[in-house]
Amino acid sequence: MSFNVELTPAMQQIRAHRSVRAFKPDPIPEGWLETIIETAQWASSTCFRQVYSVIAVTEADTKHELMKLCGGQKWVEQCPVFLVFCADLNRNADICRANGTQVNLEHTETLLSAVLDVGLLMQNAALAAESLGLGMVMIGGIRDNPREVVKLLSLPEAVFAVSGMCLGFPAVIPNQRPRLPLAEVLHRERYQANGRPDRLAAYDESIRTAHTYRRKDGSFKGWTEVMATNTSRPPEDERVHLVDILREQGFEMK
Amino acid sequence: MSFNVELTPAMQQIRAHRSVRAFKPDPIPEGWLETIIETAQWASSTCFRQVYSVIAVTEADTKHELMKLCGGQKWVEQCPVFLVFCADLNRNADICRANGTQVNLEHTETLLSAVLDVGLLMQNAALAAESLGLGMVMIGGIRDNPREVVKLLSLPEAVFAVSGMCLGFPAVIPNQRPRLPLAEVLHRERYQANGRPDRLAAYDESIRTAHTYRRKDGSFKGWTEVMATNTSRPPEDERVHLVDILREQGFEMK
Repeated sequence: MSFNVELTPAMQQIRAHRSVRAFKPDPIPEGWLETIIETAQWASSTCFRQVYSVIAVTEADTKHELMKLCGGQKWVEQCPVFLVFCADLNRNADICRANGTQVNLEHTETLLSAVLDVGLLMQNAALAAESLGLGMVMIGGIRDNPREVVKLLSLPEAVFAVSGMCLGFPAVIPNQRPRLPLAEVLHRERYQANGRPDRLAAYDESIRTAHTYRRKDGSFKGWTEVMATNTSRPPEDERVHLVDILREQGFEMK
Repeated sequence: MSFNVELTPAMQQIRAHRSVRAFKPDPIPEGWLETIIETAQWASSTCFRQVYSVIAVTEADTKHELMKLCGGQKWVEQCPVFLVFCADLNRNADICRANGTQVNLEHTETLLSAVLDVGLLMQNAALAAESLGLGMVMIGGIRDNPREVVKLLSLPEAVFAVSGMCLGFPAVIPNQRPRLPLAEVLHRERYQANGRPDRLAAYDESIRTAHTYRRKDGSFKGWTEVMATNTSRPPEDERVHLVDILREQGFEMK
C-alpha cells in the first residue's frame, strides 16, 4: 500500500529493486536472455525507430577486458553475462542507403532521443530479469573508455555504448537505498523548489540511517554531502571527451 | 511462453503495452499519481544522483498550450494528466552551492547520463500506470519547442524537458505493433549485422500485415520504407537547435 493504493504485481516488482554486485557462478538458464530482451523490446521508442542493440558478452577474456575498461568493477568480470546497451543508428543507416536516402546523424536530437529509448529498453530488461530471480546492476563505467569499447565489441559507425548491465543469480542481496522524497521529484502544474532545504535535510537523515555511505571513521554521510562532490567534479576518465568519441562514431552533436 | 520460458507477471505487464492516444474524461483516482511516481523512483540512476523531476499538468489552459507546442497532438490536451519528465540538475546545483562547490554542467556526459536515467524512471512510471489500468503514450514532441516549454512550466537553470507522457483511462485500445526480430537487436559477444537484409524484409512483411502504416490508396507500408524517410530528414521544428537550448539552460555540451 502506498497513498492508500493497492500495489499491483508489476509495482511490487519495480519496488523490490536493489543493485546486485555479487553473483553466483551459475549460468543463466537457456532461453532466459532471449526472453528478457524480446520482452524489453515492448518499450515505446521515438517514432517507433527502435534504434538500439544489446551485445551479450559471456567470454571470460572479453569480460576481463571490459572489467578493466569500466574502472575495475570486478562484478563486470564475475557475472555470467554482461550486457552492453547501445544506441544504434547503424541499422537505419543501412536502411537509408538501401532506399536512396542518407541517415541523419547531424543533430543532438538524434543521439538524445536514442539514449532515452535505450533507457526505456534497459529498465524493461532489468525488470524482466529481476522478475525471473536474477540480479543486475547498471554500469555507466562503460562510458569511461568508449574508444576501447568500440574496438573490443566491433561497434560500427553510428553505434554508441550507452550503459552496461551485469546479469546473474545474486550471491549477496544488498539493502535498498531510500529514494528522494516524492515532493522533491513530483511538481504540480509548474516547477517549484519551495521547501527544498527541509526536504533534503530529512532525506539526508534517512540515507544516514540506511547506512548507505560509510566514512573511514565508521560514521555515515548524508546524500547531499556525497552529491556536492559527485556532481561538482568533472566526470571520470575519458567521459570528459565523450562528445569527441560520439563524433568519431558519426554523431555530429550539432 | 517465449523461448520455453514461463512469463512472469511483470513480463506479461511489459508485453501488454500499447500507446494509447484517446482517453476517457475521468480523472485519475486520488493517490494514483503519487503512487506511480514514488514507485518509478525505484529505478537505478547514475551514481544514485536521481537528477530528474516530473511536472504533472492538469490545468486545461496549460494542457492546451502544451498541445500546440507538441505539434498539435490532441491527446496532450485530452488526457486528464500530462506528465513532463525532466533532466534536473537544479537540485544538485542548489546542493553544491550550499556545500561550497559548483555543479558541473560542462560535459556532454552530464546531460547524457541524466537523459538515460529519465528513461529508466519513465519506463517504470509507464508500467506502474499500465498495471493500474491506465493508458499512456510518450510525447517526444515536448522537444519541438523547448524554449516555450521552459517558460510555460517555469523550468529553472539546469532543467530540461526530455519527454512527455499522456496519462488517463483509455477510450480506445489500439493493436500492438510487432517489434524488430530479436536477432536484429541481440548480438553475441560482438556486434554483427550478418543477415540483416533478410531479417528486415521479414519484419517489413509483419508490419504490413499488422496494418501499422496506411497509404492514401489503402495499401500498407513496411517499416524500412517509413524509416528511410523518418531517420533521414532533419528532426522537426526547433529540435535541430536543441543544443542551443541546452546551452541556454546551462548544459554546455562540451
